[in-house]
Amino acid sequence: MTTVSVPTADAPDLLGDLPDGVRVVVWDGHGEPPDGAQDIELFVGRYDTPPPSRDVFEALPRLRVVQLVSAGVEPWLPVVPDGVVLCNGRGIHGASTAELAVAGMLALLRRLPEAVDAQRRHDWHRAFTDGLAGRHVLVIGAGDIGARIAAAARVFDAETTMVARTERDGVHPLAALPDLLPRHEVVAVAVPQTPDTAGLVDATFLAAMPDGAILVNIARGGIVDTDALLAELQAGRLRAFLDVTDPEPLPAGHPLWDAPGLLLTPHVGGGTTGWDRRAYRLVTDQIRRYVTGDELVNRVTDGY
Amino acid sequence: MTTVSVPTADAPDLLGDLPDGVRVVVWDGHGEPPDGAQDIELFVGRYDTPPPSRDVFEALPRLRVVQLVSAGVEPWLPVVPDGVVLCNGRGIHGASTAELAVAGMLALLRRLPEAVDAQRRHDWHRAFTDGLAGRHVLVIGAGDIGARIAAAARVFDAETTMVARTERDGVHPLAALPDLLPRHEVVAVAVPQTPDTAGLVDATFLAAMPDGAILVNIARGGIVDTDALLAELQAGRLRAFLDVTDPEPLPAGHPLWDAPGLLLTPHVGGGTTGWDRRAYRLVTDQIRRYVTGDELVNRVTDGY
Repeated sequence: MTTVSVPTADAPDLLGDLPDGVRVVVWDGHGEPPDGAQDIELFVGRYDTPPPSRDVFEALPRLRVVQLVSAGVEPWLPVVPDGVVLCNGRGIHGASTAELAVAGMLALLRRLPEAVDAQRRHDWHRAFTDGLAGRHVLVIGAGDIGARIAAAARVFDAETTMVARTERDGVHPLAALPDLLPRHEVVAVAVPQTPDTAGLVDATFLAAMPDGAILVNIARGGIVDTDALLAELQAGRLRAFLDVTDPEPLPAGHPLWDAPGLLLTPHVGGGTTGWDRRAYRLVTDQIRRYVTGDELVNRVTDGY
Repeated sequence: MTTVSVPTADAPDLLGDLPDGVRVVVWDGHGEPPDGAQDIELFVGRYDTPPPSRDVFEALPRLRVVQLVSAGVEPWLPVVPDGVVLCNGRGIHGASTAELAVAGMLALLRRLPEAVDAQRRHDWHRAFTDGLAGRHVLVIGAGDIGARIAAAARVFDAETTMVARTERDGVHPLAALPDLLPRHEVVAVAVPQTPDTAGLVDATFLAAMPDGAILVNIARGGIVDTDALLAELQAGRLRAFLDVTDPEPLPAGHPLWDAPGLLLTPHVGGGTTGWDRRAYRLVTDQIRRYVTGDELVNRVTDGY
């Protein structure tokens, strides 16, 4: 018998066919453990609450896997005990997160917020805008999300350049950014937040972007220095689309809300309808792999 | 000596290197003809005014080619004399028009107009939206613009279906629409306006679209029955992104402006900065072809 926990009451119905001998309990790691919690081997984390404390996990003697349904893992890293493998939700949100990045990029380029206002005024006023054709788009992060952003930009005749933490064929290292930034009119951040990338987009980075350039961040708020970006926006030198902020949620009185040239969404990159079916297709596959002893996918840490 | 006319004073500087023996005059076909007009063989049309009358063209004894810088040709067809070939601007606006179609489609799916309003209220309210992943996108028009719209939708894991006036491999005929429409959540119109397509998107077409579906029209206003669409929008059953309308420009008092679920831009699909350089690269190439006797590209009518 293998015991698996899922965090919400609707999750068991989202699981596909499971191997024989799998028992599912519902628990998010907060509050009183249910019957059978002592047997949990694979724990599925909730995406919309903080993780349980490390104590909770350390009290589960048979725990081997913590499976998340988000791409980001930062708050979970300190609480997952040694010997337990942490797996993320890479692939669940890739299409929808890249889609939002491109939606925001195109909305800024094609001035859709201004179009909404003109429509409300019944004002048919034709004005040329920028577009991607012939522009240079720099994508930081060469994973699934970054690759999709670049592919979409190329559909509209942009030239794309990829940068990532690990240099490889067709992908520049982070160290190349000072040379690359001045000749890219759009920069999209699609890299995990790690010690290498926290604060990467600071005042120096932003100063290297050309006048009128657009910053897109759909990754994590902490990658961008909010004050430095705010200064560039308030100066009217750069524009930005942010789905993530630092701090997050953005407090109601924060000056970023009213920054000129900023389009902001409330961390909804991965949040499209149907995400839960995509998530539990991955979870179901992971449970099968765990039970049959196959290699797990999306491993973020070493474990058992 | 070959005489070519271009319609605006800035156009001669946008032309690239021309073959020897080409003389360029500036004239848009309206008002007094300039010196040398009698020798015009290749006439470049202006995109933002109506065409000259047929009389003007018939008074040019050496006229062989009318070259447009727009994809659409409808008002020009009746005024270009027999024996003169009409060429359009296919390719100049493809990337930017497809880009606007996708920008509007994604803005509606991801609810960016609502996000703009929430940002103004300083309201961090996370809500799931639709996205393209797993959705079915029907593209009417399998030319450059339609192909780009479909390619972008596939980047975000949509399933795409192509329909065009001419059935061919992978492209369904217009007659298949009644069967196809009910299973597509997004329909994008990217087909020229012709007798086959004028009024194509009528009440019957719209009624066949599923509840909550999105119509995108970046082609020509006359392809969509405005009153029929207005009824569906006001009923809250469909949403739409329109870059073109019928009538166009949309009068300030028209009820379409305030239709719920509608995002409207004022026919700016092809209008991105740099369009004129792209346009005059095509014009320069056509002049070279004309002078050297090579086959012209983008021929819409037979001519000389």
